[in-house]
Amino acid sequence: MGALPVYDSIEIQSQSGIYKVEFDLSGVGQLFRHFPGDVHFIVDQELANLYGSELDQILTCEKTIKVIAEEGSKEISRVSPLIETLLKNGIRRQSTIVAIGGGVIQDIACFISTVLYRGVDWNFVPTTLLSQADSCIGSKSSINLGAFKNILGTFKPPKKIVISPEFLTSLERKEIQSGIGEIIKVHIIDGPESFDLLATEFDLFTNDMSVLSRYIERALKIKKKYIELDEFDKGIRNIFNYGHSFGHAIESATDFAVPHGIAVTIGMDMANNIAAWRGLLPSEHRDRMQPVLKANYSAYANVDVPLDGFIEALQRDKKNTVDKLVLIMPLGEKAEVQKVKMDNDLEFRNQCEKFLREMQA
Amino acid sequence: MGALPVYDSIEIQSQSGIYKVEFDLSGVGQLFRHFPGDVHFIVDQELANLYGSELDQILTCEKTIKVIAEEGSKEISRVSPLIETLLKNGIRRQSTIVAIGGGVIQDIACFISTVLYRGVDWNFVPTTLLSQADSCIGSKSSINLGAFKNILGTFKPPKKIVISPEFLTSLERKEIQSGIGEIIKVHIIDGPESFDLLATEFDLFTNDMSVLSRYIERALKIKKKYIELDEFDKGIRNIFNYGHSFGHAIESATDFAVPHGIAVTIGMDMANNIAAWRGLLPSEHRDRMQPVLKANYSAYANVDVPLDGFIEALQRDKKNTVDKLVLIMPLGEKAEVQKVKMDNDLEFRNQCEKFLREMQA
Repeated sequence: MGALPVYDSIEIQSQSGIYKVEFDLSGVGQLFRHFPGDVHFIVDQELANLYGSELDQILTCEKTIKVIAEEGSKEISRVSPLIETLLKNGIRRQSTIVAIGGGVIQDIACFISTVLYRGVDWNFVPTTLLSQADSCIGSKSSINLGAFKNILGTFKPPKKIVISPEFLTSLERKEIQSGIGEIIKVHIIDGPESFDLLATEFDLFTNDMSVLSRYIERALKIKKKYIELDEFDKGIRNIFNYGHSFGHAIESATDFAVPHGIAVTIGMDMANNIAAWRGLLPSEHRDRMQPVLKANYSAYANVDVPLDGFIEALQRDKKNTVDKLVLIMPLGEKAEVQKVKMDNDLEFRNQCEKFLREMQA
Repeated sequence: MGALPVYDSIEIQSQSGIYKVEFDLSGVGQLFRHFPGDVHFIVDQELANLYGSELDQILTCEKTIKVIAEEGSKEISRVSPLIETLLKNGIRRQSTIVAIGGGVIQDIACFISTVLYRGVDWNFVPTTLLSQADSCIGSKSSINLGAFKNILGTFKPPKKIVISPEFLTSLERKEIQSGIGEIIKVHIIDGPESFDLLATEFDLFTNDMSVLSRYIERALKIKKKYIELDEFDKGIRNIFNYGHSFGHAIESATDFAVPHGIAVTIGMDMANNIAAWRGLLPSEHRDRMQPVLKANYSAYANVDVPLDGFIEALQRDKKNTVDKLVLIMPLGEKAEVQKVKMDNDLEFRNQCEKFLREMQA
């Protein structure tokens, strides 16, 4: 075996200080040594089963808590007993919470770290591609309150993030493609040059983890620039919703049959097409991006998205009203990803319908 | 009636921007006009009863919520349904929560404002002397989780604080004295000159609300300097615990028979005495402060504080261990309020016992 590839560690400037992403290629079994001191682990139950021996030192800590990574675990009434368990395990203001898992575990750990003792430090080992390439930086948590999903939340970055690409080997193909959706998104936001480079290596993503890992690093470096400008999501970061308004509406209208990042991939193609049909985006740009986008959502291209349910979900999006939709699309000669206000009228409805029909062709 | 006295508005610099304390002497009935726009009021139930007609415009808003200002309302499982009510009342990310009440209402509103939509603005109308003169600035909230009191919390200042001294007229004497305890505390922290000025007017505090209001303003201006230096309570602000370690232990050992700020007043006298007996504070300083402190806790000087319960509660304080106590005391020629580590030994126990015995004499 040759020398391991080298990844830069990435430093992110936040209001609460600098935090750091490190890549560790030495394997899941080596993670424990990153977290010395008074540490309380919160680990995805399924990972604990999958990596029982590699995570042995972590899983046998008396203070380690295992959590089922399901949406219901994000309910505030289920988060409170977790905090009580941490307290019974002796967590103090100077302790550090270490979360090992994907987005659900991240949401729970980030939220607890903000509200317990008015803030304790936390570290994060993201284990899904979505969390490694995207959500691990940017500080946000989302917690559910009864019928209100993701209505509670906080901003609090981990002090340290450790990425172990080995976790990717145990992910299902659809989880990999879901994460790739967000990687594509930030490259489109970064501009045509960035996306075109990705397009040349895209075919390797699902077969060569070292290529994919390199794009995780690139995606984080692009996202870093924006979250440093807009840590609290009040301005420029809204362009990261590119593909998301449509994507959320697809998830909702199909009862979550389409994984998040794949729905976002469809959403980006949809945004590109609607922009092109309206003359807002030169069609060469749409055509340039389409093969990669289509390839990433091909397994779901035939999913039936009911149009009424889709439009209704779009209207419910918190940025939208019945008349006006706020959408993010690449615009103009430079395909610059920007916010657009669009009438929620018959023309719009017809264009959505056209896209959803052609998608299946 | 002559012209109303003029109070400075006080601006406080925080990480999230400047926030402001304004005094409004035109009466409780005029408060509504301070809060235009998309506002959701959270009002102490008892105040709603006491000031039904003055607060009429506020109480008749469909979006106004009344909350019983008792410790149990700070339980997280009782805060969640309040958030659901706000959501059902249509609260949005751009809305403002306006809290009207004392510390309990402040804790609840501050906590909700931090976690709902990852942060909504809030304003505060403090109505007790403790909250007007002390807690309204400094950004902290404390929420209970089962057996763990005040274990959850956040830092988030209100955007605006409006102080209406008229509320003080409906407070009980012990509530006034409780607030005076914190006013005395910051003046001692500010130095002998500041305290000595207070001492000359102290007798007027309970009879002349305009004198008392002037000292609210002074207390906030002193506290402002420290919270601007240490918003997140990581350093210098710990001297604001002066009187509090002893005070909390007195509250706990007497099963909360002594109101908070009065227990703090006893705690300051105790700290001064122990410092003097150990040669850490010239006894003239203790003697200089004692008459004011004694006068403020005179109604509780005869309360029986069981020594064992007192020492146990002191050990349980999060800063302390069984062997070592971290205490805040005025030290040296300048009576500068500082942190001291003290052995939790027989000498210390005897000095506590001596103080508690002499206090009753």
